[in-house]
Amino acid sequence: MEANGPKEEDNRRQVIPGPTNPMVTPLLSDLYQFSMAYAYWKAGKNNERAVFDLYFRKNPFGGEYTIFAGLEECIRFIANFKFKEEEIAFIQASLPKTCEDGFYDYLRGIDCSDVEVYAVSEGSVVFPKVVQLLETSFLNLINYASLVTTNAARHRSVAGKSKILLEFGLRRAQGPDGGIGASKYSYLGGFDATSNVEAGRLFGIPVRGTHSHAFVSSFMSPDEIMEKSLQTRDGSSTCEDFVSLRSHVLRGIFGETNQSELAAFTSYALAFPNNFLALVDTYDVMRSGIPNFCAVALALNDLGYKAIGIRLDSGDLAYLSCESRKFFRTIEKEFGVPDFGKMGITASNDLNEETLDALNKQGHEVDSFGIGTYLVTCYAQAALGCVFKLVEINNQPRIKLSEDVSKVSIPCKKRCYRLYGKEGYPLVDIMTGENEPPPKVAERILCRHPFNESKRAYVVPQRVEELLKCFWPGSPDKPREELPPLKMIRNRCSNQLEQMRPDHVRRLNPTPYKVSVSAKLYDFIHFLWLNEAPVGELQ
Amino acid sequence: MEANGPKEEDNRRQVIPGPTNPMVTPLLSDLYQFSMAYAYWKAGKNNERAVFDLYFRKNPFGGEYTIFAGLEECIRFIANFKFKEEEIAFIQASLPKTCEDGFYDYLRGIDCSDVEVYAVSEGSVVFPKVVQLLETSFLNLINYASLVTTNAARHRSVAGKSKILLEFGLRRAQGPDGGIGASKYSYLGGFDATSNVEAGRLFGIPVRGTHSHAFVSSFMSPDEIMEKSLQTRDGSSTCEDFVSLRSHVLRGIFGETNQSELAAFTSYALAFPNNFLALVDTYDVMRSGIPNFCAVALALNDLGYKAIGIRLDSGDLAYLSCESRKFFRTIEKEFGVPDFGKMGITASNDLNEETLDALNKQGHEVDSFGIGTYLVTCYAQAALGCVFKLVEINNQPRIKLSEDVSKVSIPCKKRCYRLYGKEGYPLVDIMTGENEPPPKVAERILCRHPFNESKRAYVVPQRVEELLKCFWPGSPDKPREELPPLKMIRNRCSNQLEQMRPDHVRRLNPTPYKVSVSAKLYDFIHFLWLNEAPVGELQ
Repeated sequence: MEANGPKEEDNRRQVIPGPTNPMVTPLLSDLYQFSMAYAYWKAGKNNERAVFDLYFRKNPFGGEYTIFAGLEECIRFIANFKFKEEEIAFIQASLPKTCEDGFYDYLRGIDCSDVEVYAVSEGSVVFPKVVQLLETSFLNLINYASLVTTNAARHRSVAGKSKILLEFGLRRAQGPDGGIGASKYSYLGGFDATSNVEAGRLFGIPVRGTHSHAFVSSFMSPDEIMEKSLQTRDGSSTCEDFVSLRSHVLRGIFGETNQSELAAFTSYALAFPNNFLALVDTYDVMRSGIPNFCAVALALNDLGYKAIGIRLDSGDLAYLSCESRKFFRTIEKEFGVPDFGKMGITASNDLNEETLDALNKQGHEVDSFGIGTYLVTCYAQAALGCVFKLVEINNQPRIKLSEDVSKVSIPCKKRCYRLYGKEGYPLVDIMTGENEPPPKVAERILCRHPFNESKRAYVVPQRVEELLKCFWPGSPDKPREELPPLKMIRNRCSNQLEQMRPDHVRRLNPTPYKVSVSAKLYDFIHFLWLNEAPVGELQ
Repeated sequence: MEANGPKEEDNRRQVIPGPTNPMVTPLLSDLYQFSMAYAYWKAGKNNERAVFDLYFRKNPFGGEYTIFAGLEECIRFIANFKFKEEEIAFIQASLPKTCEDGFYDYLRGIDCSDVEVYAVSEGSVVFPKVVQLLETSFLNLINYASLVTTNAARHRSVAGKSKILLEFGLRRAQGPDGGIGASKYSYLGGFDATSNVEAGRLFGIPVRGTHSHAFVSSFMSPDEIMEKSLQTRDGSSTCEDFVSLRSHVLRGIFGETNQSELAAFTSYALAFPNNFLALVDTYDVMRSGIPNFCAVALALNDLGYKAIGIRLDSGDLAYLSCESRKFFRTIEKEFGVPDFGKMGITASNDLNEETLDALNKQGHEVDSFGIGTYLVTCYAQAALGCVFKLVEINNQPRIKLSEDVSKVSIPCKKRCYRLYGKEGYPLVDIMTGENEPPPKVAERILCRHPFNESKRAYVVPQRVEELLKCFWPGSPDKPREELPPLKMIRNRCSNQLEQMRPDHVRRLNPTPYKVSVSAKLYDFIHFLWLNEAPVGELQ
């Protein structure tokens, strides 16, 4: 923002249509950004060109990869960037009275038509230090988006491809938007559906849900059900007393089950004969929930409907899912109902990566997992430490030093490439200065650790992918990348993860993926470092 | 929502003016709520009266208290509750096609005029199991709000009353709204200001900020500064070369300091002569940052201005703050500048409860703390497990059983009281049935653990406070509680915490505060439990 003066000659500001987050305004910003903008303006530095890097230093969740997400929201933000009068009034009230009026006129005039954004495509696998964005402060939009997407991808990876993953986190999310963002980015990271209706409406994510314990306990007995008739699925006839249709099944075989539960299931099946999915653990799964479910599912079957399945929300999910499966298979055999043994089993209840992994190890019969709190709040690590550093101003490189080497920034406007090996796996990412020639296929290139002199390797890439693409504003010779629909971003994420060498993305002790700099950039970093180091240390 | 039919005779729906969260719509809900609403409607149960409890089971952060927050947003939500046509269309698209049209007409007609909300006042200290709200699903709005408020209160408690606490979390918050909510509820929990400008505008929270490392590294040398003049504070004269005013101080005493840092400080002081607060750790705190700051602060002093202070964002904050303090005191003495030794010192850099505590133990000279990630994401525990349980329907009590006793719900519509002892401390909270006589001052009352027979105590309260008040909709004989301004809620929070017996709120091994039920409610819970327990266990 600081380097962005008003432009009279053209106006490339374009409102990108589509769902924008109503919480995101130019004021969603730290006050210091406005203080600094004023100081820059006062010092006449507002027309200088600055280059910023946005990156993170450490992969989350003890892993060795991160999925980059949030780019579309950033681009929408800058595309729509314009101060409203009431916002300028509030900035004026927040800054000292000594600030000159000219500054507020300057704010009135600015937009982001002069800002350039180069970024990795959303949904890409990325690694620490690789720059994802240049210019302005998208930290809020990127940090949580990338974190929850990565979290979702990790859950997908443990659950396996064949399972259905449902995001159930709205109630525990960090605020309403936390809930909506969580749904969007969980889908991006590989989830199949959400329970959050608003997220479904905004982003076209499939929406799923069943009923709660409260629904079950709100019934007393089947006598309460007034409307008992149900048409057969083909519409050919009507069963006048669906409630009693299979009640003999219960009396004959299973003994007495909870009657308020049976009433709730019956009532739900009458409302959703094609979508009967019952929560079976309100009272006792094996003694009441499963027999009640089976009686109602068999009654539906008599009328030509097929029940969807059950949900388990407590207890030993491995054991209960296996026992339920046995039960369903017995029903299939005893009652001659084809495929009843394949009845869907959904599990929920504070699931996370570890519990999925434990379930896999124990063996289970769960088909779908509903995951909430641990997914959406990123409980295992609630924040990603993205930072935003100045790396160049007016073509002068800038470096941020630190006693902690991992916090030293890599100066200059850069290009980034991913180099692929013979097997098709990415081997290493390399950053170069903006004007260096790009790495070439089949040509040896030296890849150096940015700070550790001894870490270096020659690589002969079989394929070279340029990572940073122009997302804003674009020009005839540098066309703007399209913002793909969410589903395509989701595919990119899944494809990129599959393309990785498995040891980089495994859950336990993954191998770090290397991010390097070119020999020229290495030399330049260390030349600058010497020149900028604190005077005291040079003495 | 389920129990809420359309009302023709009156319309108590009232739009409450003030900032509402644009993300919160009736669709910000799990699909199962609509599925269940349909099943209830289909079963003709939509006009029944249901009572729900919203509560949590365990205090967060290893503590023994929680601050209740989010109520105002809930009340605004129900006051404005009304489906839009496009929302109904989306629900229709999400539910099975077999659902009858009459249901959507029903949705068109409903609002929340028939819902009653009884709650503890926002900003109150609350404990597990005490019911905070009756009816509808406010979990999203309550969970994070209460969590981050409690987190803020805990940080305040460790930092002590005299320190200034600044919330700096926007960039790491879980989405834009997570950032705004974090600022609001951190303020509620005892923070003094936020860096988030939008939160300042929406809620009137004081906004604070200084500059970043990028500002410092964007300058090369003092020669860059074009406009070097600064008026004296009283306007009586103008210093033509502020930049050189005290440069001899540096040359004479401190040796060479980083020139781009000096340029940045000078420039910032020219822009904000009354609000000069400098980030001093870009290069080297003691060799460059502090001397540069002092030179500029002394120059400001020459012209009648008073610098605000410094910010430390890395390194050993205890050591650096003490060394800086010594430096400032020496300057006060050497240059005869009164109060220079009291210069403000702000610290930031991944602070949390533990680091504040460690700083206190080491001894430090920090006046203000800027706290971000750990505060706003509630890193130590990223979710509060609020639940929402049906406890009564059509005057029939409902109980949710579980093999885990802590998960058994307490049936019936209830009243809650806080009983105070002689010293003025709260002794115990007690829940009673709705129609039981309230506890009386100076009268002995038996308080029982809801599930453990042997845990019981007689209490003679010196003061009795009814906790659940009517927040919606109110009536002539039961007037609605006002929604107080944020500042008053903040005061309530601080007063309530001060009123607690210290061992309940201390950081290490706090004493659990007891929540009890009346003898009558105890007997009733256990009577119901026997009757509702799974059949198998009764055999």
